[in-house]
Amino acid sequence: MIKTDILIIGAGPTGLFAVFEAGLLKLKCHIIDALPQPGGQLSELYPKKPIYDIPGFPEVKAGQLVDNLMEQIKSFQPGFTLGEKAQDIEKQEDGSFIVTTDHGTKHHAPIIAIAGGLGSFVPRKPPIANLSLFENKGVHYMVKDPEQFRDKSVVIAGGGDSALDWSIYLADIASEVTLVHRRNEFRGALESVDRVKELKDIGKIKLITPAEIVDVHGGEHLESVSIRMNNNPEEDFELDTDYFIPLFGLSPKLGPIADWGLEIEKNAIKVDNTLDYQTNIPGIYAIGDVNTYPGKLKLILCGFHEATLMCQSAFRRIHPDKRYVMKYTTVGGVTGFDGTRKEAPKAVIRSID
Amino acid sequence: MIKTDILIIGAGPTGLFAVFEAGLLKLKCHIIDALPQPGGQLSELYPKKPIYDIPGFPEVKAGQLVDNLMEQIKSFQPGFTLGEKAQDIEKQEDGSFIVTTDHGTKHHAPIIAIAGGLGSFVPRKPPIANLSLFENKGVHYMVKDPEQFRDKSVVIAGGGDSALDWSIYLADIASEVTLVHRRNEFRGALESVDRVKELKDIGKIKLITPAEIVDVHGGEHLESVSIRMNNNPEEDFELDTDYFIPLFGLSPKLGPIADWGLEIEKNAIKVDNTLDYQTNIPGIYAIGDVNTYPGKLKLILCGFHEATLMCQSAFRRIHPDKRYVMKYTTVGGVTGFDGTRKEAPKAVIRSID
Repeated sequence: MIKTDILIIGAGPTGLFAVFEAGLLKLKCHIIDALPQPGGQLSELYPKKPIYDIPGFPEVKAGQLVDNLMEQIKSFQPGFTLGEKAQDIEKQEDGSFIVTTDHGTKHHAPIIAIAGGLGSFVPRKPPIANLSLFENKGVHYMVKDPEQFRDKSVVIAGGGDSALDWSIYLADIASEVTLVHRRNEFRGALESVDRVKELKDIGKIKLITPAEIVDVHGGEHLESVSIRMNNNPEEDFELDTDYFIPLFGLSPKLGPIADWGLEIEKNAIKVDNTLDYQTNIPGIYAIGDVNTYPGKLKLILCGFHEATLMCQSAFRRIHPDKRYVMKYTTVGGVTGFDGTRKEAPKAVIRSID
Repeated sequence: MIKTDILIIGAGPTGLFAVFEAGLLKLKCHIIDALPQPGGQLSELYPKKPIYDIPGFPEVKAGQLVDNLMEQIKSFQPGFTLGEKAQDIEKQEDGSFIVTTDHGTKHHAPIIAIAGGLGSFVPRKPPIANLSLFENKGVHYMVKDPEQFRDKSVVIAGGGDSALDWSIYLADIASEVTLVHRRNEFRGALESVDRVKELKDIGKIKLITPAEIVDVHGGEHLESVSIRMNNNPEEDFELDTDYFIPLFGLSPKLGPIADWGLEIEKNAIKVDNTLDYQTNIPGIYAIGDVNTYPGKLKLILCGFHEATLMCQSAFRRIHPDKRYVMKYTTVGGVTGFDGTRKEAPKAVIRSID
């Protein structure tokens, strides 16, 4: 059982920054996220794209912002349960909660902060009859650990940035990468398209277009896929492969959280914006894009503010008897849980002779 | 008469960022600030000190954050009335406002956003009988334009960072810089103290301690100051000087805004945090440290959020008939009023042969 002060569901920018504000209050955090890495949408959907409306950054790439936030919270040593989805919640007699993921990992905390963004990202699956039989047995909808594909043959399907970028990345790791797309045209960053062409020309990526995977075969594990050539059906063929990775995009779903008894409105969780972004269940907060209230804007900078006020309220719930006096970080510095300390250089008091 | 869409009072980080959010909505801003430069406290009180709790910046110097915000809003071409204090407000028949500064500059806008921080910074004045006679005639409590002192003799009084830093800065501009402090010990950044010592050793700064200015003399303009030597009264003397700059710190005062009919609580302006941070006077908002509401935290990051929601509300007041559909900057880019355009590189659609 993982124990923490604030259990954060969602490792996007709002969830990450909550770790920092909690840390200033000496509260520990643990984060659950269905994606294999922190950053939420920013890492998964548009890491290389610029954001222009983060205050103080005339321009910042989404992946860079995530890296910065990870650096900012590092000394508060957040725990992570990644690649697992928060599924069940049980309220304990003392008012605390146990949250169990779809992999059975259990977490215990007095405070839950749902920072789930637009929901957990569920892969769009191609309509192939036997596909589910081989899920996690050769069929993967996301790349969680690239090393798993070392010296194996991999078939990737898709025509967007994910398919292009993972083909490029795995070309150095897998023994064979085959990229299959139902059209001839790919849609992605210019440099990614160019790089796939280079890797194709030197034989590191095999390209099959316009084509589709229409069947999967194997025993205990995937062994081959059937490929239909869209222009020449007589050229359809079967290709031996260790892995098949369909990358047809992710769509966000609120998921199991929708069944936790929270008030939901338009696929978002209603919160009390007059005070602390708490939900209708005391001790459960919702911050960032996942919540709704009058005038709500789904902006990262709003999530930062909501996370900060939420932490203050969480502190009062956990320590009803302690009085908290806010100290500016410029004045008080930041003391990490790892023993590190950041602070402004002290003024000297000195006579000049 | 200066005309704008949103008249912002206060050029601190919250006021500056409001320009950006307003710009995304195609609303123009003009900012009034009593200080001679933008940035508020960050520029005036601690430009070289680090801040650790701006989201996405593990550490950022206050002055750097101001520079970043100025860069971020540049293309929205905000107007500035600096070194003047917002004094009087008159509501017009059409619901708009005219704000006049203590210098008589008039500004007309349908929306007022007070981002006044802790108030306007009022210099602490030393208790010298005739001092007020020479204000702006040789006596200055702030350095608005360093060039004014070129090839002139200057006496600076004070023992903190401002006195040290302006002595250093003016040593290259003025014909003579004399730094007077009532103690032998200065209190400031180590590098500033060291630099003053260097400049003293090469004769660019004259240091007189422990001593105090006790009188000022002159006709139309300041001509000399009387210096009392705290340890040896018999060594008291009169020193000819063109300028006297007492730098004994600034204390924030809400000032004339307190008389505008706004609801005030604990030296802050009450706002409606359930929706848009509007005050009790429709069309006047208060954002950042200057406002108060249940659970208010005086943090820069909260001011950013409040500025953003305020702009949405201002847009609806100015354009009651227009429907605004929010577009993420990553998707829609940023189009400046100066014709510049920032946007994410477009995806290419291309076949790979």
